[in-house]
Amino acid sequence: MELSVVDFGARLPGWVADEIAGVDRRLGHVEDRMRLAHRLAGRNHREGTGGPFAAVVSDTATGEVLAVGVNLVLASGLSGMHAEMVALCLAQAAAGTWDLGGAGRAPVELAVNWRPCAMCYGAVLWSGVARLVIAGEGDEVEHLTGFDEGPMRPDWKEQLAARGVQVRTDVLREEALATFREYGERTDVVVYNGGGRGRSDARVLQVE
Amino acid sequence: MELSVVDFGARLPGWVADEIAGVDRRLGHVEDRMRLAHRLAGRNHREGTGGPFAAVVSDTATGEVLAVGVNLVLASGLSGMHAEMVALCLAQAAAGTWDLGGAGRAPVELAVNWRPCAMCYGAVLWSGVARLVIAGEGDEVEHLTGFDEGPMRPDWKEQLAARGVQVRTDVLREEALATFREYGERTDVVVYNGGGRGRSDARVLQVE
Repeated sequence: MELSVVDFGARLPGWVADEIAGVDRRLGHVEDRMRLAHRLAGRNHREGTGGPFAAVVSDTATGEVLAVGVNLVLASGLSGMHAEMVALCLAQAAAGTWDLGGAGRAPVELAVNWRPCAMCYGAVLWSGVARLVIAGEGDEVEHLTGFDEGPMRPDWKEQLAARGVQVRTDVLREEALATFREYGERTDVVVYNGGGRGRSDARVLQVE
Repeated sequence: MELSVVDFGARLPGWVADEIAGVDRRLGHVEDRMRLAHRLAGRNHREGTGGPFAAVVSDTATGEVLAVGVNLVLASGLSGMHAEMVALCLAQAAAGTWDLGGAGRAPVELAVNWRPCAMCYGAVLWSGVARLVIAGEGDEVEHLTGFDEGPMRPDWKEQLAARGVQVRTDVLREEALATFREYGERTDVVVYNGGGRGRSDARVLQVE
């Protein structure tokens, strides 16, 4: 057998460069980093490149932004291209290493506009980030947007802590919900839950 | 701010084409599909492109292979490039859709040479595959290889079933363990657990 496709990838849409052009590279306050995530998340769904999710990777000491990511499932045609995955891959590509927490490296933060889904939770574990900052957690995101976030363990934070990842939550939470509410009110979007399941399916799925 | 890196990706190493050249495109028996995964997994670590893990995506009705993946963390420098992620992305790139289970599509199987890690478990959920076939499950993989597989929920199979994914396990289990044992006996490998954690760290980590 011979394979027709042997590579794949993803690229940030052009509008991301426009959106961040006027933003400082050093964002010393966690609220500034989350505000950037919210801006990118909101524009991402309005641009049609993916769902209302974005992530910012930065140096924990200086606040220097190392990479940003937005959900690119629709733009890339790949179900794994969630915002966290994109941001972590871009940060690792820029750093030239699969371990952002490797020996001699400055600790790195991942800021996301909600708790990562089941897949991105695992991606955080393997990335080497030292800190995860989220705007919030809870099933509001599923109720408002229709996205299934997948099954999580009740002790998900402790499991991260056991692997050296600290979690901070509730950073600009209301702003996150405003984005999800805006997205949820749209009737012209594709909710990419996989397996032919759309918005209504996720809204009734019980994960606990 | 301006970003220096705006794209990323991964490519199957050249040796994969050699390895599959003599293999039929239609593998009607699940053991044949798993045997291919075992071959690719074993060669992957010997070639130094990544850990001893591989995955095969196929049409559940005909056994036609749609994509193969190997763990490319070392080759790509990206911690998310596990075998399942690579195989699913390649299958979606070939199919031109983020949903392998979309309306009108033939159901798809993902065969992997062990239970997916925490990240790839989530990736399976969003990919649209209808069936997950694994060589085995359990902490043998962690004890033999030193890879942390991450926290999983006890009801992980039921959670997949609730989203339309059936699981079959123990297909060529002993062959999987033989590969892991061979890998575990090597002293010249990089165990990419992230956060500077290597083989010995994962071997003592309690995840339940």
